[in-house]
Amino acid sequence: MTEPKPVLSEDARPDNVSETTDSFDPAASSLAGQVDRSVMDELLSIRSSIDNIDATLVFLLAERFKATQKVGVLKATHKLPAGDPGREAAQISRLRRLAEEAHLDPAFAEKFLNFIISEVIRHHEAIAEDHQASRD
Amino acid sequence: MTEPKPVLSEDARPDNVSETTDSFDPAASSLAGQVDRSVMDELLSIRSSIDNIDATLVFLLAERFKATQKVGVLKATHKLPAGDPGREAAQISRLRRLAEEAHLDPAFAEKFLNFIISEVIRHHEAIAEDHQASRD
Repeated sequence: MTEPKPVLSEDARPDNVSETTDSFDPAASSLAGQVDRSVMDELLSIRSSIDNIDATLVFLLAERFKATQKVGVLKATHKLPAGDPGREAAQISRLRRLAEEAHLDPAFAEKFLNFIISEVIRHHEAIAEDHQASRD
Repeated sequence: MTEPKPVLSEDARPDNVSETTDSFDPAASSLAGQVDRSVMDELLSIRSSIDNIDATLVFLLAERFKATQKVGVLKATHKLPAGDPGREAAQISRLRRLAEEAHLDPAFAEKFLNFIISEVIRHHEAIAEDHQASRD
């Protein structure tokens, strides 16, 4: 006898959950079969934490771009320049200090921020162009 | 009459807290004085959210590198290659899918992961060299 299926809210959607996960194999590796089972198990355990951190990073970056998108609209509306060197210098020195506290290489933190900022400036310029085009 | 100073644990260190924050000016901007006060206030309000997100990103990245550092030691100990193309392909396709869910540009998510992975591989190679040197 099978258990009666519980009534689930649409949010629970157990059938759809697989949409975002079923094609991801957390054990995918070019090392499969070439490594001791115990070593592979340890590797997969650490990788599962990395996968959780990466999902968090993606959602956090999405939130950061939502915020910079607002800055972009504000700058375009008031015809302000896309970049702000004074702000960027303050951000870099703060992030280097936070990186030291977190035992992360400060040079990497700076490279990371520059990587993000160059993407943000690209977005700001695109917003400004759109804004200009809609006025022409 | 002054309040008696409360006894604080070393972790609380109120004098040292300023070390990581006093030189950061959240209002630093090359636009200061050139923009309407209300526009500047709106900009600074969004930037304060960006600053919170950036601190979170730095601490999360530090945690990610702690995990990959463990992978590096495991790989060096068992003489496994620094990179794992099968794993990287699975990570990229998962992160692109998560990015779509988060309304983040999937191409940017992929660029971001590649940026992180190239740093990780550099670390793995350094760990492997150290490991080899300590055996020589």
